[in-house]
Formats: sequence, structure tokens, C-alpha cells
Amino acid sequence: MAPLAQSVLVTGSNRGIGLELVRQLAEGPDPPQYIFATCRDPEGPGGKTLRDLAAKYPNVRLIQLDAVNLATIKAAVQVVESQLNGRGLNLLINNGAINSHDSLQSVAPQQMLSVFSTNVAGPLQVAKEFLPLLKEAAKEANMEGLSCSKAAIINMSSLGGSIELGFGILQAPMYPYRASKAALNMVTRCLAVELQEVGILCTAIHPGWVKTDMGTEKAPLTVECSVQGILKVLSSLSQATTGAFLDWEGKTLPW
Amino acid sequence: MAPLAQSVLVTGSNRGIGLELVRQLAEGPDPPQYIFATCRDPEGPGGKTLRDLAAKYPNVRLIQLDAVNLATIKAAVQVVESQLNGRGLNLLINNGAINSHDSLQSVAPQQMLSVFSTNVAGPLQVAKEFLPLLKEAAKEANMEGLSCSKAAIINMSSLGGSIELGFGILQAPMYPYRASKAALNMVTRCLAVELQEVGILCTAIHPGWVKTDMGTEKAPLTVECSVQGILKVLSSLSQATTGAFLDWEGKTLPW
Ligand SMILES: NC(=O)c1ccc[n+]([C@@H]2O[C@H](COP(=O)([O-])OP(=O)(O)OC[C@H]3O[C@@H](n4cnc5c(N)ncnc54)[C@H](OP(=O)(O)O)[C@@H]3O)[C@@H](O)[C@H]2O)c1
Ligand SMILES: NC(=O)c1ccc[n+]([C@@H]2O[C@H](COP(=O)([O-])OP(=O)(O)OC[C@H]3O[C@@H](n4cnc5c(N)ncnc54)[C@H](OP(=O)(O)O)[C@@H]3O)[C@@H](O)[C@H]2O)c1
Repeated sequence: MAPLAQSVLVTGSNRGIGLELVRQLAEGPDPPQYIFATCRDPEGPGGKTLRDLAAKYPNVRLIQLDAVNLATIKAAVQVVESQLNGRGLNLLINNGAINSHDSLQSVAPQQMLSVFSTNVAGPLQVAKEFLPLLKEAAKEANMEGLSCSKAAIINMSSLGGSIELGFGILQAPMYPYRASKAALNMVTRCLAVELQEVGILCTAIHPGWVKTDMGTEKAPLTVECSVQGILKVLSSLSQATTGAFLDWEGKTLPW
Repeated sequence: MAPLAQSVLVTGSNRGIGLELVRQLAEGPDPPQYIFATCRDPEGPGGKTLRDLAAKYPNVRLIQLDAVNLATIKAAVQVVESQLNGRGLNLLINNGAINSHDSLQSVAPQQMLSVFSTNVAGPLQVAKEFLPLLKEAAKEANMEGLSCSKAAIINMSSLGGSIELGFGILQAPMYPYRASKAALNMVTRCLAVELQEVGILCTAIHPGWVKTDMGTEKAPLTVECSVQGILKVLSSLSQATTGAFLDWEGKTLPW
């Protein structure tokens, strides 16, 4: 089996779905040559599990990246670029995000902006800064079509970001979170349209309702199961699914 | 013909679509008793046409309201409340917005946040602060169903906020603007679901591509024609169209 991609970068990879993505990529039968595991504070207590993983697998490289801090994004690009040594980056997974349980009663502009900053402006900026490396990967691949093994941006979205499905499916209204994921879906779509001509795929993925700090213990899905599904879906993406909104089982979700 | 509503508040009503909404409401055959024409700077040069309109029609009341300045929203609520003298506010039209022509190349987090603040967090906050007056109107109406004459929030959206339609239809990608209108559609939807049980309708309207400062001279539609269409659509809204995304001719748009 060919690897999903030769080089992968994941944001928010110190816990939850991001950490499990790095673990399954590293432990898989045909791992990527470069797994850039980024997080806000690699040296802090929250980075311990990721540091242990990096110690075990030399292809896992810890890098600091805070999606709301442009200087750290630019610094991460430099590190990745020098490690790739002239080659491009195949797969960027914008996974890091925050939630906010604000209802109409409790929501204030500041929460809206903070969630939007982390969940929308951040991922767009990360995509923008890594674009030269993604373009390089698309060029190197020297093949038709689109795929994660060539060049791709995956934005971790949420069913909660589906405008169509309303919030009947979720207990809490969560205005800031839901608005941010709808906006991220739009960004995904715009990137998909704009970047397909340079050979870069862009797709939004809903990981399911997953047992993580964000998903809570009430979630029905284990992080192992969700990430197995996500990786399978990623390996199947093509021209036909750029700009799509898919769940961890590959089902198309309504905007 | 019954008036669209006894009391209407419009944001960003000093020019463009907002100004024309106030004009047509005031000049119509059965005008609302209260037209609260709000804008950021009622005393400034940009408020001249609106001041002239208010001088001619005593039911047009100029009030300062900047959607990104919570103090001005709260102050506007006070003024409206005292003028309504115990009655509720029937119709809130969140019309004010800004555009940003930023492409992927030029976009920076600051533009994303500034557009999101004006176009999403602002309208949500305006809705939230006027909620007691809207609820009061819904209670007074003492009738089943939903309508603009009872109690309603109309959010001025845009075809550019349709995730489904991608950006093929628009020349420029406009990442911040498009993401903000998709997020506003989500907010509209959440408000519609949450407020229907208290009798408040909430709908997103695309005004067409209109000759205004934002729409430019290239737009095919005059502001008169767009607003005629919008007012006709508003008068037709009901339980069936709360939470919908409609254009100025009443056509449903895909999210
Ligand atoms: N779990 C679910 O049920 C569920 C459902 C739908 C969608 N999702 C989406 O799936 C993704 C992962 O969620 P999760 O369940 O793994 O959440 P999680 O356990 O709460 O982890 C969130 C991760 O995002 C990181 N993060 C937060 N702010 C960041 C920033 N400014 N820059 C970079 N990273 C940042 C966190 O880092 P720190 O440790 O430094 O805080 C953490 O690593 C998110 O996009 C989430 O919206 C999850
Ligand atoms: N024209 C089109 O083709 C078109 C198409 C789709 C959607 N729309 C939507 O229709 C609505 C009206 O657009 P338009 O064409 O009339 O635009 P416009 O001519 O540019 O007028 C925008 C209005 O919004 C106000 N505004 C800006 N920031 C505000 C804030 N923080 N608080 C309150 N008001 C604020 C402006 O006030 P100042 O004078 O103080 O700046 C102005 O009155 C907008 O929501 C727009 O997105 C327009």
C-alpha cells in the first residue's frame, strides 16, 4: 500500500483527533516520510504524549504553530521548508479549533471573534503561508488529477457547521462555533475553486461526534475509530470530491 | 393595504439599500407608525439625505447605531423603547455591512476579523439587544403564526454567501465577505430555530446585485427595484419561510 502522502502537517496535534491522526500515520504499515506534528506549546505539559510519540518515531517532527499567531505560522513554514529540503508539502490538515458553548443569551462579540479567529482566519492563514510548499508538491507530482498524495488542504469542519441541518441535531445552539464552521466551509469551497488549477485539492471533513476534550465522554465514537475512517476517506479523495463536505465515513453532508 | 409592520428598525440606513428601504417605507401608501432609521453617524455628511427624509416624514426617526459598538446598540434600544412607549418592535432589518475584496493573496487575519465583526457579530448583537422589544411585539400581536407585521429579524445576506454556488458566479473570491455572509446565514438559521417558539420570524434575504457603493455602477439592478422586491417578499414571509434564504424576488437560494 502506498502512503497517504510523503509529507503531512497536522495542526493541534497534541491531543484529541490531531494526536490520533499523527499516531495512526506514524504507526501505519506505510508511514509518510515526514509527519509535521504541530501544536501551540510543544514543550508544555500538554505536549507530553506527542513528545513521547516523536521520540519513538523519527519521522514525527514536533513544531510549534499557533494558528492565531502569524509569526509562529511563518516560523513553522521555515522549519518545514528546511526539513523538506527542496521538496513540497503534500498534505496540510487544519485540525486545531476551539469550541464555545455560548447561547443567544450568553454570547458576546468577543467570543464570536475569538472563535472565528481560531477556527476560520487561522486555518486560512495557515493554508496561505504553506501554499508555496503545497504548490511545489503539486508540481513535483507531475500527474493529472487531485489527491492527498499529490497536494491537499483538509479543513476539519463539523456537522454543527451545516446550515441546512439547523441545530436540531445538536443539544446546544453554540452560535460562535456553528457560525465559524459554516464560514470555514465557505473558505474550503473558495480554496477548492481557486486552487484546483494549480493541482491542490481542498475538502472539508466532519470527524463524527468523537470522545475527546471537545466531544466529551458522551460522544459515541472513539478517536481511534473516527481517525481510521478519516484516513480512509482522505486516501479516496479526488477531483470529484475537491470542494466537498464529507463525514468520516465518506458521506456527503449538506451545507 | 395593511402596513408591513407598525414599527421597523433598519441598520445602515444612510445610503444604499438601507436608505431606500426607509424611503419606500415612508413614502408607501400605508407607512409604519415608527421607522427607526439608524446609522453610524447621523450628524455627519453621510447622513444628509437621511436627515432630509426625516425632516419630511415625522415617522422617520434618526438614531445612531454602530453594529460594532455595543454601547451605541444599547443606547439605541433605550431610545426606541422610550419612543415606542410600552409597545414592542415588530421588524428589525440588519442591513448594514462592509465588503472586502481580499483575495487569497491579499487576505490577512485582520480583514477577516473586521468583516466578521461588522457582518456577523454585529447583527447578532443587535438582534440580541432588541430581543426584549421583539418579544414584546410578538406577545402583543396575540395571533398564531409568524410574520413581519408580528415580530421578525431580517438579515441582509448575499448570494456571495451561498457555499453551494461556489464563487463561479462572482468575479472576485472575496474570502472575508463570503465567509462572513455564510456565517450570517448560520446565525439566521440558529435564530429562526431558537425564536420561533416565542413568535419571532428570522429570514436571510439576498437583495440582488444592486447599484450602490457596494454593488458598484456595474450592477444590473437599481436600488428602487431591489427594495420594491424585498418589501414584497417581506410582506409574504410566514412560518413556512422562517429560517429560509430568499432573494429579492422570493426565490429560495441554496446554502
Ligand atoms: N470531537 C468532536 O466530536 C468533533 C466534532 C466535530 C468536529 N470536530 C473538530 O475536529 C477538530 C479536532 O477536535 P478535537 O475533538 O480533537 O478537539 P480537542 O480535543 O479540544 O483538541 C483541539 C486541538 O486544537 C488545538 N488548538 C486550539 N487552538 C489552537 C490554535 N490557535 N492553533 C493551533 N491549535 C489550536 C488544541 O491545542 P491546545 O492543546 O494547545 O489547546 C488541541 O490540540 C476540531 O476542528 C473540531 O472542531 C470535533
Ligand atoms: N449592493 C449589492 O449588490 C449587494 C449584494 C448582496 C448583498 N448586499 C447586502 O445588502 C446590504 C446593504 O448593502 P448596500 O449595497 O446598500 O451597501 P452600501 O451602499 O455600501 O451601504 C452599506 C451601509 O452599511 C453601513 N454600515 C457599515 N458598517 C456599519 C456598522 N458597523 N454599523 C452599522 N452600519 C454599518 C454603512 O454605513 P456608513 O455610511 O457609515 O459606512 C452603509 O449605510 C449589505 O448587507 C450588503 O452586504 C448588497
